[in-house]
Amino acid sequence: MPNPSFLGSTFPLIQAPMAGVQGHALAAAVCNAGGLGSIPAAMLSLEALRNELTQLTALTHKPYNVNFFCHTPPQPDPQCEAGWQQALSPFYEELGLSLADIVPGPGRAPFSEAVADVVEAFKPAVMSFHFGLPPDALLTRVKSWGSLVLASATTVEEALWLQAHGADAIIAQGLEAGGHRGIFLSDDLTTQVGTMVLVPQIVRAVRVPVIAAGGIADVQGVAAAMAVGASAVQIGTAYMCCPEATTSALHRAVLQSADARQTALTNLFTGRPARGIMNRLMRELGTLSPTAPAFPLAASAIAPLRARAESLGRTDFTPLWSGQNASQCQPVPAADLTRALADGLVR
Amino acid sequence: MPNPSFLGSTFPLIQAPMAGVQGHALAAAVCNAGGLGSIPAAMLSLEALRNELTQLTALTHKPYNVNFFCHTPPQPDPQCEAGWQQALSPFYEELGLSLADIVPGPGRAPFSEAVADVVEAFKPAVMSFHFGLPPDALLTRVKSWGSLVLASATTVEEALWLQAHGADAIIAQGLEAGGHRGIFLSDDLTTQVGTMVLVPQIVRAVRVPVIAAGGIADVQGVAAAMAVGASAVQIGTAYMCCPEATTSALHRAVLQSADARQTALTNLFTGRPARGIMNRLMRELGTLSPTAPAFPLAASAIAPLRARAESLGRTDFTPLWSGQNASQCQPVPAADLTRALADGLVR
Repeated sequence: MPNPSFLGSTFPLIQAPMAGVQGHALAAAVCNAGGLGSIPAAMLSLEALRNELTQLTALTHKPYNVNFFCHTPPQPDPQCEAGWQQALSPFYEELGLSLADIVPGPGRAPFSEAVADVVEAFKPAVMSFHFGLPPDALLTRVKSWGSLVLASATTVEEALWLQAHGADAIIAQGLEAGGHRGIFLSDDLTTQVGTMVLVPQIVRAVRVPVIAAGGIADVQGVAAAMAVGASAVQIGTAYMCCPEATTSALHRAVLQSADARQTALTNLFTGRPARGIMNRLMRELGTLSPTAPAFPLAASAIAPLRARAESLGRTDFTPLWSGQNASQCQPVPAADLTRALADGLVR
Repeated sequence: MPNPSFLGSTFPLIQAPMAGVQGHALAAAVCNAGGLGSIPAAMLSLEALRNELTQLTALTHKPYNVNFFCHTPPQPDPQCEAGWQQALSPFYEELGLSLADIVPGPGRAPFSEAVADVVEAFKPAVMSFHFGLPPDALLTRVKSWGSLVLASATTVEEALWLQAHGADAIIAQGLEAGGHRGIFLSDDLTTQVGTMVLVPQIVRAVRVPVIAAGGIADVQGVAAAMAVGASAVQIGTAYMCCPEATTSALHRAVLQSADARQTALTNLFTGRPARGIMNRLMRELGTLSPTAPAFPLAASAIAPLRARAESLGRTDFTPLWSGQNASQCQPVPAADLTRALADGLVR
């Protein structure tokens, strides 16, 4: 049995937190196989979060990670909302929906003292943050109960900022990664580079361990990440078709199709750029639209379209989150996948 | 002394052909250090090509590569040209230039029988092609004199097409790469993925050797490329500040500045998407413009702007070609760089 990695897990391999497509079942399976499973908490109510952590800790005694967002909630902008609804109105009409069906609201809340109250009872071995870090006092509280703090950087500048503000390790999120870009010091996407480029630059710049994320989906990818200096890897997309994931059947089918070879960064689904598989909404509105309200407000007006279209078996309005490398998405048990990927760590 | 690689060079390491920033001096230095130096021929007249090859072969007896483009020249479209000139006219006015200064013409010609007549006298060990392959009869002629034929693929589909049409090895050009995307079966940039994603997918799909290109700039990057299954690497940007390169002083300065961390694919300089460092033209017109004429016609109207601005010490209109990883650009001799990079091949 190898020594525990700096993450506390047997292998320095994190199952990426993926809101909406997985919960405690996937995380527990990964933990019990020696990886570090993750609970994505950004879209969970306090009660749902407590429930997830209770179920997870019933299924595993191994270390695990809980992931949160650290955005600043925007002020709603009625004019912007109106413009967004106008842009979407032809789709509402086509699907027989009314703009009155929209339930406004953020949908995703940042990490807060109230969330910390829930988490404290569980004292997770690892906590990871996206879009920066919590305010100093809140971060101090998190660290007081012993959690190792990880945070995502998409540039060298962000890595240095996170290290200066208390991150114990940096997740270097390469441009290949699926879901939301962690970018938080800028909104200029020309700063975003591939994993193989980003990891060694951050390794040279910081003194804390660096975790490679983005485009890693098989044993060779893991070995490549370690070759460029990573101390661990974080892998998401490859887990999305595991039976323990909650990925919808529609999403699974697209992930395993040739369509998954075409992804783009889009702000249409939430207001922040995130990588997903191209679909109708992205093609018709353009992947990056100045009309979309600020994160996370864009999501509200998409929800009715998505629900109706999915009920008809269509993914036209579904955020089909995926990294660039869905080539390895297969319905294999998460434990098998974890052990197979871990072979790349020791080459 | 290791056995020659499948490329004929000591190391399976190609110095990427980079039109406009290098010629025989860089190629010869790389060849003599054990790599495969390249002559970029796409912008050379027949006489200039003959001259380059004559000078190269006077400097080295090692195998070398000559690179050509295989695009289909477009029909000039007067309406499109007028629109492009209109879009650029504020810059012409600002710099005191006249649109009458524009010298129309393609600037870049595809590989042809006339070019082959020049090349045949030299029978290069390796020839590489971008944007597909020459027509069958011409490719047969090239192969008849013994050249190993390489060609760039940016997707699995392109790799399979190139293999079926006679390529002896595939250059898997990841999204991180500088200069022109080799994309030729589609113009949909959502198909373009990072090197670490692309290489293993192509390795699984074809039976010929695969050469990794894009974002590889140091010994760790080389090792990572080999870890994902590459048989060789092609490295461009890292060579751009070598004394043997002909990169302008302005371009060298930007490559070695923090500005080099921001690159994008742009069609403004030639009409085809190519990666370069963000500059004023890209910021003001948008990196990908529907107004730019078809490749290579967009270049003509840029040339006077570039020349005038450069004479004033400004790179506002210069195509600052660079991959995403300019972090290693240093004024080191190409032989030293080649040997340092080669250490990553044998880890």
